[in-house]
Amino acid sequence: MADETLNQAETAANDEKSESWAQLAWTHLECVRNSSSPPLIQCITNLVSMDLVANVLLSAGASPAMIHSVEEIPDFTPKVHALYINVGTLTPAWLPAMKMAAAVANESNRPWILDPVAAGASAFRLKACLELLTLGPTVVRGNGSEILVLFNGSANANFKGADSMHESTDAIEAAKSLARTYGCIVAVSGAVDIVTDGERVVGAKNGVPILQKITATGCAVTALIAAFVAVTPSQPFEATAAALSVFGVAGELGMCSAGGPGSLRMHLIDALHSLDRTAVLQRAKIANVS
Amino acid sequence: MADETLNQAETAANDEKSESWAQLAWTHLECVRNSSSPPLIQCITNLVSMDLVANVLLSAGASPAMIHSVEEIPDFTPKVHALYINVGTLTPAWLPAMKMAAAVANESNRPWILDPVAAGASAFRLKACLELLTLGPTVVRGNGSEILVLFNGSANANFKGADSMHESTDAIEAAKSLARTYGCIVAVSGAVDIVTDGERVVGAKNGVPILQKITATGCAVTALIAAFVAVTPSQPFEATAAALSVFGVAGELGMCSAGGPGSLRMHLIDALHSLDRTAVLQRAKIANVS
Amino acid sequence: MADETLNQAETAANDEKSESWAQLAWTHLECVRNSSSPPLIQCITNLVSMDLVANVLLSAGASPAMIHSVEEIPDFTPKVHALYINVGTLTPAWLPAMKMAAAVANESNRPWILDPVAAGASAFRLKACLELLTLGPTVVRGNGSEILVLFNGSANANFKGADSMHESTDAIEAAKSLARTYGCIVAVSGAVDIVTDGERVVGAKNGVPILQKITATGCAVTALIAAFVAVTPSQPFEATAAALSVFGVAGELGMCSAGGPGSLRMHLIDALHSLDRTAVLQRAKIANVS
Repeated sequence: MADETLNQAETAANDEKSESWAQLAWTHLECVRNSSSPPLIQCITNLVSMDLVANVLLSAGASPAMIHSVEEIPDFTPKVHALYINVGTLTPAWLPAMKMAAAVANESNRPWILDPVAAGASAFRLKACLELLTLGPTVVRGNGSEILVLFNGSANANFKGADSMHESTDAIEAAKSLARTYGCIVAVSGAVDIVTDGERVVGAKNGVPILQKITATGCAVTALIAAFVAVTPSQPFEATAAALSVFGVAGELGMCSAGGPGSLRMHLIDALHSLDRTAVLQRAKIANVS
Repeated sequence: MADETLNQAETAANDEKSESWAQLAWTHLECVRNSSSPPLIQCITNLVSMDLVANVLLSAGASPAMIHSVEEIPDFTPKVHALYINVGTLTPAWLPAMKMAAAVANESNRPWILDPVAAGASAFRLKACLELLTLGPTVVRGNGSEILVLFNGSANANFKGADSMHESTDAIEAAKSLARTYGCIVAVSGAVDIVTDGERVVGAKNGVPILQKITATGCAVTALIAAFVAVTPSQPFEATAAALSVFGVAGELGMCSAGGPGSLRMHLIDALHSLDRTAVLQRAKIANVS
Repeated sequence: MADETLNQAETAANDEKSESWAQLAWTHLECVRNSSSPPLIQCITNLVSMDLVANVLLSAGASPAMIHSVEEIPDFTPKVHALYINVGTLTPAWLPAMKMAAAVANESNRPWILDPVAAGASAFRLKACLELLTLGPTVVRGNGSEILVLFNGSANANFKGADSMHESTDAIEAAKSLARTYGCIVAVSGAVDIVTDGERVVGAKNGVPILQKITATGCAVTALIAAFVAVTPSQPFEATAAALSVFGVAGELGMCSAGGPGSLRMHLIDALHSLDRTAVLQRAKIANVS
């Protein structure tokens, strides 16, 4: 939608300075907020995350639509600006809808984003994630353990739940390889959020550790990536880094008012809603990782 | 339950003064709170809304029950004081339960309320909503776009998600027509909430725009309508206007303490729980629309 | 995991002084927090409760995993430290997963905890709860009405939704009988939370009444029991009493900052996350009931 608006910012970003990336992050957020109509994001997401995902999208200026039945996808998915698929509470009944929606998004030339929650928790889940990968997501965002298990392609007996056992930086090579294999952007969340297109690698160092004590923050930031990519579909690499950084900045600001994970969940949403240029430019930390 | 208590207030309301309506709104809330046992509201609602719907009902003094399997409806629905059906995350698996529950509610002489979320998002969804309409809901509450698509009876290719593209006042004639056709109360949410029985039309002007940045507030106010109608089933028109106004007043009071949509979601619930007579009488703004 | 650590505290508790129980409650919480890896709790829980259950577990130091498909249970359930089953939004599609997970937990020697939400709401639901009981849960936690209906084994025509119509103390004999029949711990929530193994009976008097105005607090405290039992599987009686008391203390502390049920929900989570030894020792009130 707003690719043109971003060209200037991107050019600056090519200087590879953090300030330029910060400017880019701000510009992407503005594109979501100032879109002629709020970007409509179809979410086929897990049952735990629905409230937070919807509220994060609304706070950022997007319009969420939780529509996940195969009866509706042929009518609805062509209307959306981006599709978000999250396998957190996967069942065989939901998988056909995910695949159909991905296919319709592809046919309609709409970006779609995959969150492979707990990809290694079972053989069934891993197989589903690998099948979804072959359908060509625009962006995949997971934690270190999830990206490593997708890269290895085999379930890990030690794989636990949605919480990562690995640092994001342990998964850089796996992320690059996946990005090249599937032609997508891969993001790895962690103390440093890694984003790669298979060649370039940037790291976003925003956020606070206690975000991991709030359920579905990973799901929510992937939804935010979908909103950012929706308005700048030709720049998924930049949009992904921008969304991760903006979400992290909102977390940092939210933490200024929070007394724990319960209040942070609330202040994060408020902060995302009222985030201004100064805060983003001062706080966004995105830099090349070499 | 408390129809008698309300007669006095209603007589006053016939003076068509906003003060009388405000008194009526307060009396309805008191009826929910002071009911001999909390009105039991069966909710067959969408997956995004469940937490907010349940917490809004509890805060108002009602007792929510999210029970949606066809195996339970014949036993359970006859026990409830009202039934709430919301199609937000409709699937073919849930539709038979909605229809069965509506039929059992009818047989048991229980009011039931329909929220046709995103009615025009797909042909499947619109057909389901129109089928539910023929089962005789006591009240239908939607936004302008939803009420217009129900009135037109055909899906709109431009229909987006749950967010309205129309003002509520654009849908007054559609609402009146639907109310007459289906013999129900129709409410249209917006900057002014419209309520009609096909003849009378009132508008409630409470609330704050930022409520639209919180997911499921529309679902929650429809649930509150169900609670209000549950205790005064012979006065669904008044109960609906009262619930819309009371929810809006809670939103206004919540906004006094809120810093954004995240904190408003919380303060709205607190405000609804502690709402007192003075606040309702001072703030409730319900008036005839001509 | 940490049974040894607790032995000293338990010995002290055998003095049957509330201070000793308070010490035990604190020690159990510390075991969850300081576990070598966060106890992984598989939750097959109702749709309303998922966000609160996950956030309460995270705040206490556990790791929730909402995994409920039969395709994943054989792979995943053997990895977890405890399993939590909650029938709040039961459907026939979910029941086989609940039974399979319980069986796998038994085979894997993992504790599992049952929350029979609204057990008497329908014949279908009661039958499902009684079938789950025969699979040998480690702990069952319900309100007075739920425990009584399980004891009586027949649906009560007056049974409403998830809100109790009975005091917990009305269900002490029923709880003792169920505990003996099924060889499990039975907890009954209420103004006083009752815990029994069929012989011993203790009461925990923490919490605030307004917790009942927040949806899924009962579900959340049962999940906390699962986390406490996960780290001390040989002491389910003590772990259950400790979890109920700790949750109640968090509620009391949360209430110091709260203005209603909306803000209490948030402050409860913050308080659980930051709960310190002094608060637990000063506030935890667990005593023998004779």
